[in-house]
Amino acid sequence: MQLYENERIDDLQLKGLKIIQNKEGFCFGMDAVLLANFTTFEMNSKCVDLGTGTGIIPLLLWGKRKPQSIQAVELQPKIAEMAHRTVVMNKLTEYIKIHNIDLKQAYTSLGMHKYDVVTSNPPYMPAGTGIINPNESKSISRHEVRCTIEDVVKSANNLLKNGGSFFMVHRPHRLVDIIEMLRKYKLEPKIIRFVHPKVGKKPNLLLIKSIKGAKPELRLLDPLYVYKDDGTYTEEIKDIYSSL
Amino acid sequence: MQLYENERIDDLQLKGLKIIQNKEGFCFGMDAVLLANFTTFEMNSKCVDLGTGTGIIPLLLWGKRKPQSIQAVELQPKIAEMAHRTVVMNKLTEYIKIHNIDLKQAYTSLGMHKYDVVTSNPPYMPAGTGIINPNESKSISRHEVRCTIEDVVKSANNLLKNGGSFFMVHRPHRLVDIIEMLRKYKLEPKIIRFVHPKVGKKPNLLLIKSIKGAKPELRLLDPLYVYKDDGTYTEEIKDIYSSL
Repeated sequence: MQLYENERIDDLQLKGLKIIQNKEGFCFGMDAVLLANFTTFEMNSKCVDLGTGTGIIPLLLWGKRKPQSIQAVELQPKIAEMAHRTVVMNKLTEYIKIHNIDLKQAYTSLGMHKYDVVTSNPPYMPAGTGIINPNESKSISRHEVRCTIEDVVKSANNLLKNGGSFFMVHRPHRLVDIIEMLRKYKLEPKIIRFVHPKVGKKPNLLLIKSIKGAKPELRLLDPLYVYKDDGTYTEEIKDIYSSL
Repeated sequence: MQLYENERIDDLQLKGLKIIQNKEGFCFGMDAVLLANFTTFEMNSKCVDLGTGTGIIPLLLWGKRKPQSIQAVELQPKIAEMAHRTVVMNKLTEYIKIHNIDLKQAYTSLGMHKYDVVTSNPPYMPAGTGIINPNESKSISRHEVRCTIEDVVKSANNLLKNGGSFFMVHRPHRLVDIIEMLRKYKLEPKIIRFVHPKVGKKPNLLLIKSIKGAKPELRLLDPLYVYKDDGTYTEEIKDIYSSL
């Protein structure tokens, strides 16, 4: 297996799956693990992951319960190529396909309204602008972040069947924009789970499931706490990681 | 002071304020106390309370920090009359006025776009339908509850100055509808606080502050827990009640 500078192979401790990551930029985080854990689907589902990065979400979904297929979309050529090598390494090319395309046009390659599940752990800041910290240029980044949420949601709408599910992880301070966009694109928010760093602290992540064309009825789940007071992971977080 | 059958006078333990309540139907709850605690305003503010019921919110706002005036709107004649007697009893007729009008037409009596603050602890089920438990007729009540949120939000928009604040308490499962309506009527959600019955449990109330015409930027506050594991109130709830 070819590895480039700064790349390493990590064992996911899940059904023998391994992942290539780049120490300088493209390592998956807890967001991806929580999103994969939050995502529910049937065995024969056709799935799409928008902005797949290392390909972590498709791998985790595959390890959790084999869907029929996962189309993974990644805009940046180098990252898409790295994710493709991960799929090859895991001998999953028959099931997981990496597409080096823009998620805004994903439906032109992947087909419209034919998928059961779309997942996304989108960049919380705009891709391709070169701005690492959104606070460096607040007004530009704020504007472009808004575009990104709309792009992702619109793309999910284009890809999903009626009744299909869209799972996303994002930041709670974008909740209003997220909800507005989901409603705009007929993806009705059905389940929200807030992730809090610890008891008593405001949430810093939100997991949201929407169903295309569903009737309004939101359910909030019990909060997920990441750390105990002593700074170690909560039992629930340990369970999520150990069930990887 | 005239009292009718089933009425009683309760001491709010706040600057000598007292309130008339009806044991059979119209007693204020923790929702009102939390909303009044959550509401912030300047001394010279002109306020409106939509769906005031017993008049508890105006009394608590008055006790907290004297606003210039509070117009309190109540549709149901008997409750409005009871609230008026409470205002008289407290010698606050100069500052708090009870209006027995429909909140949908409140701006025609109270004037458009001239208020700094609007508060509302709206019925979570539709007023005037005779349905006490919304589960008794789910589809009708669900539909009419949606109307009610839009009515309240639209009325707040009609009453508020640009830059004025709208404070509401509601149920978290209506979050999506609330956010959609607030955006529709140019009341930008700025602060949300979820109220959880206890640590680890999903929220059962939400407090939301919106500002008319403001730019998007949502802040979530740390969660508010009502009960400790032993079933007694948390220190924060005790503090809120003791600062009444």
